[in-house]
Amino acid sequence: MSAQKQLHLNLNFLNAGTFASAWRWPASTPSAFADVQYYVRTAQLAERGTFDSIFLADFPALSDRPDYRPFQSLEPTIVLATIAAATRHIGLIATASSTYNEPYNIARRFASLDHASGGRAGLNIVTTADPVSARNFGLKERLPHRIRYERAAEFADVVKALWDSWEDDALVGDKASARFVDTSRVHAIDHEGPHFSVAGPLNVPRPPQGRPVVVQAGGSDDGKDFAAAHADAVFSVAHSLPDAIDYARDLRARAAVYGRGPDDIRIFPGLVTVIGGTEAEARRREEELWELVPIEYGLGRLAGILQVDPASLDLDKPLPANLALPVDGMQTFFRGALTLAERGNLTVRQLIRAQGGGTGHRIIVGTPEQIADNIAEWFASGAVAGFNVMPDVIATGLEAFVDHVVPLLRRRGIFRESYEGTTLRDHLGLARPERRVPVAARPAPLRSAAR
Amino acid sequence: MSAQKQLHLNLNFLNAGTFASAWRWPASTPSAFADVQYYVRTAQLAERGTFDSIFLADFPALSDRPDYRPFQSLEPTIVLATIAAATRHIGLIATASSTYNEPYNIARRFASLDHASGGRAGLNIVTTADPVSARNFGLKERLPHRIRYERAAEFADVVKALWDSWEDDALVGDKASARFVDTSRVHAIDHEGPHFSVAGPLNVPRPPQGRPVVVQAGGSDDGKDFAAAHADAVFSVAHSLPDAIDYARDLRARAAVYGRGPDDIRIFPGLVTVIGGTEAEARRREEELWELVPIEYGLGRLAGILQVDPASLDLDKPLPANLALPVDGMQTFFRGALTLAERGNLTVRQLIRAQGGGTGHRIIVGTPEQIADNIAEWFASGAVAGFNVMPDVIATGLEAFVDHVVPLLRRRGIFRESYEGTTLRDHLGLARPERRVPVAARPAPLRSAAR
Repeated sequence: MSAQKQLHLNLNFLNAGTFASAWRWPASTPSAFADVQYYVRTAQLAERGTFDSIFLADFPALSDRPDYRPFQSLEPTIVLATIAAATRHIGLIATASSTYNEPYNIARRFASLDHASGGRAGLNIVTTADPVSARNFGLKERLPHRIRYERAAEFADVVKALWDSWEDDALVGDKASARFVDTSRVHAIDHEGPHFSVAGPLNVPRPPQGRPVVVQAGGSDDGKDFAAAHADAVFSVAHSLPDAIDYARDLRARAAVYGRGPDDIRIFPGLVTVIGGTEAEARRREEELWELVPIEYGLGRLAGILQVDPASLDLDKPLPANLALPVDGMQTFFRGALTLAERGNLTVRQLIRAQGGGTGHRIIVGTPEQIADNIAEWFASGAVAGFNVMPDVIATGLEAFVDHVVPLLRRRGIFRESYEGTTLRDHLGLARPERRVPVAARPAPLRSAAR
Repeated sequence: MSAQKQLHLNLNFLNAGTFASAWRWPASTPSAFADVQYYVRTAQLAERGTFDSIFLADFPALSDRPDYRPFQSLEPTIVLATIAAATRHIGLIATASSTYNEPYNIARRFASLDHASGGRAGLNIVTTADPVSARNFGLKERLPHRIRYERAAEFADVVKALWDSWEDDALVGDKASARFVDTSRVHAIDHEGPHFSVAGPLNVPRPPQGRPVVVQAGGSDDGKDFAAAHADAVFSVAHSLPDAIDYARDLRARAAVYGRGPDDIRIFPGLVTVIGGTEAEARRREEELWELVPIEYGLGRLAGILQVDPASLDLDKPLPANLALPVDGMQTFFRGALTLAERGNLTVRQLIRAQGGGTGHRIIVGTPEQIADNIAEWFASGAVAGFNVMPDVIATGLEAFVDHVVPLLRRRGIFRESYEGTTLRDHLGLARPERRVPVAARPAPLRSAAR
């Protein structure tokens, strides 16, 4: 199996599962969202399915609607460190906010996770758009979109420079000469920018992967430019294959501006899976899950994405005309909802349902064969590296994927039978990056005096 | 064994061991300082010795002298989460800086570690005095001592309020009624202070321990006041039993001001152990370890504590007269060094050695019997709850303590044969704290209008 033909699968591990009603499913345990052993068991199941990685979204506030459903709760690097101790291969991607963290702390935490896991860490950088989080960090209002992305880009620069601050062979550890570290091979970064001043070096040797895998997940113009410059992988939203092809073309064009090739960024659209032994069984499962989602939850969630008052939406009518793209917030999900509603001529109720009670990602409902066919078709287009798999219900939905979809993908020769490497970069077919010498540390380039 | 007679032992886990030369010891592996499996094995060894806890110091910068010795590197909560997965009882205490972190992030991370470990987490709050760290966090200079401690006190208030933001029974998880969390039992904290504005609530249910154990380790007046107000345990410095008795009296008087009793704070002086089968063997071991410490390292470290130029110190003469207590920095170690030098009439070289090449804590060199006698004597004074054990070399020195000192302490009836509870608070004999309702959330007290 060549690197080109290798499909990649990431598990988007949203506590009880993607559907807002997943926790109400018979086999689900409501308290599992805060039980690290539940995360361990699920990661082991994904590892049995030779997934490239698991991914934990994150949000530094109590939000969404905890009265209706579980939420991302335990700090994700704590969860992933626990999982690292109980797994051997699967990649471990956590989300961290560039708006509410210091880059030194994040560079260090993810370098540490990379060491602790033998090179399996990934960092999904988000700018945390919501106003609720802002109030946990000394702000009355969130920062403007552009400022957040400016900060994120500088944040990523600093984090990468810190990961690069140690040369790979700086640790000498020679007992005879009493030389522990060759400090001439450990470098200050002396970063001075509008948002951060960070001297460095990091106090952690260079991570096993050189740099943990950098992931990005926002679909705004600023988000795509950030991904083009910094990301090794993106989690995208695509409701149709033409959308996915457009997205890939756009992202690759932006990446080219930064001198990056079309295969330098792995693209993973979200895919919500509802699997049944027959199509009718799958439809029935979706129906049952849907009936367990309180309609007021779905309505509130949709209103949040559209940034309108829920009372302004009539469940049995189409969306109001002339909804304005939010100047800030979840632009990707906004566009996705409008596109879905328009294409299907949907009522608000139908739209909520088409979004799985508010996930915002494409839903596929069917047999393992149908799902494997669809995955293979998208993969063959070259627009996606694979999928960010979002099981309807974790445990049962993921088990069905691992036991029934994965074998079909293997049979088609597009998905690994077993892990071939040891690091997340190995799984993704990404090279270990060379150390980049910070611009400030290079000899000044010769310049014409005539400027 | 009654709670009163229970000695407590914490392992101060300084990478290769306390001596600067520990990494050069024959059985030591130089790269172990960044190998999480080394931390796991050591924690399992301490758990075999029924230690209450292990403790990881921390420092968000590359400092000390990495050319001469290992340093605290991997982010400690990542290490402790890994250890939690591989141990069952031992408490897990990590250091975090109140100066370079947001309280929401720290409250959440330690609540998560407490959930992940089944109630074994502790948080050692430090203000991070050094100027090197400041430059990794946007500052040219460290903040003044008093400002750091003001911030630390507010930080501790916010963190505790966040841990208390969920009532214990707020999670309903009733599938039939679709009620997940009873949001009337989850409370905003709406903290507004000079250093922080934090709305809350936390996005993590109340930790198993109610609150992770709060630890403090600074000996300045501000540090002791902070401990008196907030700490469940302190890591102190005491070079003699009278010093320990003075310290306990002082701390308990300060705690009384906050309405806290003499037994509300567990006091653990540091104790560097060098153990041999005979006293001569122990002395020889100390001699060998000492000879492996480059003198320029010890001199630099002492000069750092005294905040003087190393060139101003003559190895074969006493300390210069009239050294000024640093207005900022490690006042405890400064005072300790001066006291040691004065009492023993030591030269600079002898002082460096008396400090084990710069640890700053009391060293005991002897047989297991001598060490157990000394521990029992101090414990009987009532001035200490136990010791913050600092093995000369981890692995061999800790093995000697576990296999030879612990059995003697057990035979005397002052140390547990096995763990009796499951949480760190259980081990320490500390009650699970009641939720404190924030002042702002209480009805306003009636006040005389005449002010």
